[in-house]
Amino acid sequence: MKTTAVIMAGGRGERFWPKSRNSCPKQFLSLTADGDTMIQKTVKRLLPLVDISDIYIVTNAAYISLVAEQLPEIPKENILAEPAARNTAPCIAFAAAVINKKYDDAVMMVLPSDHLIGLEDIYINTLKKAVKVAEQGQNLVTIGITPEYPETGYGYINFGGEQDGAYKVERFVEKPDLPTAEKYLASGKYLWNSGMFVWKLSSIMKNIQELMPDIYEGAVKIGDAFGTPQFSDVLIKEFTAFRSESVDFGIMEKAADIYTIPGSFGWDDVGSWLAVERINKTDSDKNYIEGNVISVGSEHTTVCGGKRLIAAVGLEDIIIVDTDDAVLVCSKNSTQDVKKVIAQLKEQGRNDLV
Amino acid sequence: MKTTAVIMAGGRGERFWPKSRNSCPKQFLSLTADGDTMIQKTVKRLLPLVDISDIYIVTNAAYISLVAEQLPEIPKENILAEPAARNTAPCIAFAAAVINKKYDDAVMMVLPSDHLIGLEDIYINTLKKAVKVAEQGQNLVTIGITPEYPETGYGYINFGGEQDGAYKVERFVEKPDLPTAEKYLASGKYLWNSGMFVWKLSSIMKNIQELMPDIYEGAVKIGDAFGTPQFSDVLIKEFTAFRSESVDFGIMEKAADIYTIPGSFGWDDVGSWLAVERINKTDSDKNYIEGNVISVGSEHTTVCGGKRLIAAVGLEDIIIVDTDDAVLVCSKNSTQDVKKVIAQLKEQGRNDLV
Repeated sequence: MKTTAVIMAGGRGERFWPKSRNSCPKQFLSLTADGDTMIQKTVKRLLPLVDISDIYIVTNAAYISLVAEQLPEIPKENILAEPAARNTAPCIAFAAAVINKKYDDAVMMVLPSDHLIGLEDIYINTLKKAVKVAEQGQNLVTIGITPEYPETGYGYINFGGEQDGAYKVERFVEKPDLPTAEKYLASGKYLWNSGMFVWKLSSIMKNIQELMPDIYEGAVKIGDAFGTPQFSDVLIKEFTAFRSESVDFGIMEKAADIYTIPGSFGWDDVGSWLAVERINKTDSDKNYIEGNVISVGSEHTTVCGGKRLIAAVGLEDIIIVDTDDAVLVCSKNSTQDVKKVIAQLKEQGRNDLV
Repeated sequence: MKTTAVIMAGGRGERFWPKSRNSCPKQFLSLTADGDTMIQKTVKRLLPLVDISDIYIVTNAAYISLVAEQLPEIPKENILAEPAARNTAPCIAFAAAVINKKYDDAVMMVLPSDHLIGLEDIYINTLKKAVKVAEQGQNLVTIGITPEYPETGYGYINFGGEQDGAYKVERFVEKPDLPTAEKYLASGKYLWNSGMFVWKLSSIMKNIQELMPDIYEGAVKIGDAFGTPQFSDVLIKEFTAFRSESVDFGIMEKAADIYTIPGSFGWDDVGSWLAVERINKTDSDKNYIEGNVISVGSEHTTVCGGKRLIAAVGLEDIIIVDTDDAVLVCSKNSTQDVKKVIAQLKEQGRNDLV
C-alpha cells in the first residue's frame, strides 16, 4: 500500500520570538548549526521512507510561498493552504480528504514540521513499524516517545498490552503536574505524546465521520472539489466554517482501537529557547554562543547574536536572542513567558514586531 | 581672594560602555531623566559659588569640541586640552600653572566632572567652608564624604583633630577589603575620598615643587607660555614628557598640612551601571526601565533601551544597555567586568566599538 506523509506546518512558533514571527514562524527557521530549516530537516529525514511526490505540506495560506521557496522539490499541488487556523483536527481532515481523492486507500503519516530527531535511522524504523501496524487494520497508530525524565510540558500516553511490537493505548492524558509525571515515569506504562500519527486514509476518515461528523462533511466536500476549478471557493467556504479542534481531543481521546509504537530516537520538540543548548554543542562553561558576541564570565547561557555586538557579562542561566529590530533577554525559568511579550506587543498595536 | 574651579574631564568612563565610548565618555552623557549631561550638571551646580568665567575644564584634546558644544558659556580659553592622558597630577599641575599666569594667587577647587550631587545647597556650603580653610594657610583641603556603608570600592581618609570645622588628615588609605572597611566605618574616624580638593594656587604649586619637581618644572614652562604663540608647542613638548601620576599618590599621600571637610550631600560617584537605579526612580518591582522596553516579570533590573525593542523576561539583578551597534547584558555582580569587554574588543582590533 502506498505510504504518504502529511507535514503540519501551520504553527506560529510564538515561543521562538523574536526570531519566529508571524511572517516567518519557527518551522521556517534554522535553529541548528547546519543551516537547514526545521521543515527542510523534516522532509529530508523522511526520504528513506516516502517518495517526495507523496509528501504533503499543510500550512496557512500565508506561508505557501515560504514552503515553495524552502522545499522546491515538493510538487506544488501537494502544498495545501489552510484559509484559516483551525488547529490540527480540521488540518488532518483536509489532508486526508484530498489524498483520498488520489488514492482509494493509502497509509498516511501525520508529522509535525518543527521537531528534531537525533537518530534518524531509528526514527525511520519506528515509522516503518507503525506503517505495518496501520496497514493491518482499521486502527490509529501514534508514536510514543520513551520518557527520559518527568516532563510536565507534554501530554502522556498510557499503554497496555503488546501485540507485534505495538502497544494498545489505554488513554491519553493531559500535561501532568510534577508528582503525577514522576508516577507516570516510575510506572513504566506511559510514553510522551509526540504528535506523530500513522493510519490508513480509510481508518482516519471513518473515525472523523464518527467522532466529528460536521468536520467530516466539510472535508469530503473539499476533497471532492480538489483538482476542479471550484476547489478554492469550496475550500474557503468549508474550511473557514470548521470549528477549531485538536486531533488529540477531537479524535485520539475518543477513538477505540489505538496503538502506540514506542520510539527512542533523540526526539526533541524544540518547544522553547531552552532547546537551543540541547540541540547544539555548548562550550566548557555550558554556554551556547553564536554570532557577534563577547562573553565574559558567563555560564549556562545561550546567546544567539545578530548584526550588533552582544556583550554577555557575568550571566548565568540567561537566554539572549538578537534580531534587527528586537532583542530578547530571558531567564531560563521564564521561556514560556515569551508569549506574554507578544501579547503586550499586540495590545500596543506594534504588529510589525509580532 | 578669587575662587576658581577646575573640572577634570579627561576620563574614559569605560565602566559605562557601551554608552560611554572613546569618542564620547561618561562625563558627556546624560544618565538621568532630566537630560543634562554629567559635565553640564557639574558646571551648573557650581554657579552659586563661582563665576562661569572662573571655571576651567581640563580634558583630553579629543574632547575639546564636545566641551565647547555642551558648555558654550565657558570661555574658550578656559578649556585646557591635555595632549596626552597622564592621570590627575599632571592635569592639576597644568591647570594650576595656567591659572597662576592670570592671578598672583587664587583659590582653586578641583572637581570631577562625572559625579552626582543630590543636595546641592549643602554641597555649596561644604565647598565654601573648604575655601575658607584653604584661604587661611598654605594647606591642602579635601572634601571627605561621610560613609554610609563599608564600601570597598573607594579610598578612605583617616582624620584626626578638628579646628574650625576642618579635620586634620592623618593619612589616606587605598581601597580596603570588607572587614577593614567595616572597621573604618565603626571607628567614626574615616571618610570616603571623593577626589574633590580645594587649595590656593600658591599652596598647590609649593607642594608640586617639593613632591614632584620634574612635573613642576614642565608645568611652569607651560604656564609661562600660556597666551603666547608658543603655547601649543610648549604644551605638547612638556605635557607628553610627564610621567603618569595620580594626585592621591603624587601629592596627597605625601604632603603635610592636609585638612578634610566632611560632606554629606548625596554624593554619588556614578562608578558603574549599578548607579543608574540609585540615581533614578525605580518602579514597584525595583526596576529602572527607560526607552523601547517590554518587561515581563523582571525585578531589580535596569534596562536602558535604545531604538530597537528590548524584551526583558523573568530577569533578576540584570543590567541591559542598548545602543545602535552594541548591547550590554550584565549581572549586577559583574559591572566591573565591563572593562574586560573593552579589552577584548581592543585585542580583536574592533576599535569602532570601543
